[in-house]
Amino acid sequence: MRVVVPFGAARPKTRLSPVLDDDERREFAAVMLADVLDVLDACGREPTVVADAPVACDAPVVVDDRPLTDAVNARLGDEPTAVVMADLALATPAAVKLLFAPDAAVVLAPGRGGGTSAVVSRHPEFTVDYHGASIRDHRERAAAVGADTATVDSFRLATDVDEPADLVEVLLHSEGGAAEWLREAGFALRTADGRVEIRRSGTESG
Amino acid sequence: MRVVVPFGAARPKTRLSPVLDDDERREFAAVMLADVLDVLDACGREPTVVADAPVACDAPVVVDDRPLTDAVNARLGDEPTAVVMADLALATPAAVKLLFAPDAAVVLAPGRGGGTSAVVSRHPEFTVDYHGASIRDHRERAAAVGADTATVDSFRLATDVDEPADLVEVLLHSEGGAAEWLREAGFALRTADGRVEIRRSGTESG
Repeated sequence: MRVVVPFGAARPKTRLSPVLDDDERREFAAVMLADVLDVLDACGREPTVVADAPVACDAPVVVDDRPLTDAVNARLGDEPTAVVMADLALATPAAVKLLFAPDAAVVLAPGRGGGTSAVVSRHPEFTVDYHGASIRDHRERAAAVGADTATVDSFRLATDVDEPADLVEVLLHSEGGAAEWLREAGFALRTADGRVEIRRSGTESG
Repeated sequence: MRVVVPFGAARPKTRLSPVLDDDERREFAAVMLADVLDVLDACGREPTVVADAPVACDAPVVVDDRPLTDAVNARLGDEPTAVVMADLALATPAAVKLLFAPDAAVVLAPGRGGGTSAVVSRHPEFTVDYHGASIRDHRERAAAVGADTATVDSFRLATDVDEPADLVEVLLHSEGGAAEWLREAGFALRTADGRVEIRRSGTESG
């Protein structure tokens, strides 16, 4: 099965700008990508990164500067294909294996907030649309082409890392480099009024 | 196994007050509780609701007005016990079965933001503490009493419903009465700038 990992290399993780500057976001996004590639490798998969700008990583990279939806759809159809987002910092081999386990024509891993964290398509006519409540659209698109659908229930796959609050999940649950990177950058958990937040100590200069 | 469902009946779901008034929050919390009880029933479990005020529901209710942590700890220790939160509106029998599957002394289902959505304890000395990053504390408490721990990876169990944004998950993924209640109350999804939000149409008067 072809495995595609889309990666926004041009303007990575803009919604983390309240807590990470441009260089840090670039670095952190690359660390999360490396974690995802490691996990796929541990599952015996051979992913290709589809990025909107060149990026250095431990997998073949194809640069495609079209919007995410178009770049992914260009790679669906002719053979079974998995699409796994690059910011699933909580992914583990066990979680990713859930994605490949069902024999359905379309397998969907919902992301929080209506997103789709990962898809396996074995149907030649299934296409994606990552705008809006994509998980609902993907269910409807699968039904529209007559593809039976399985849904994967995984907190690890549902948790993509977009916003500062998501860093709490990384610090608590990542088993890869992303948590380590955050800790080295000075991030830690803070509990305030029963809510768990992140705090950052003085930025390291070396 | 004893199954306990703690329920905050006195001041239910205060963080939903931006979108639901007092009566609506009370009603919606009761609908989510009913969903959780239905799912436990479908798994062959016989839950007891531990509430801080009387509540009508389809299970035995014990009123215990101590704080959540104390009320739960009072019921741990002497026999294997599961504690399942009452606001897991996305819970399904398949997800709940994941909780009961591992044979570990302590089984933890993480909630988003550092919470603990569900626990199974088969260890006489394990106790809970729901303040702060409880999932981390629960791991440490299990280790401290020498209990082996299993962690359940479930988006459905990780998703408790506390805030308006969480209603998106209910509308998209609930298979119970909670989604129906929201739709009847006028809630629907709206997509804005690629983010998925809720909107509410004119409140029904009858």
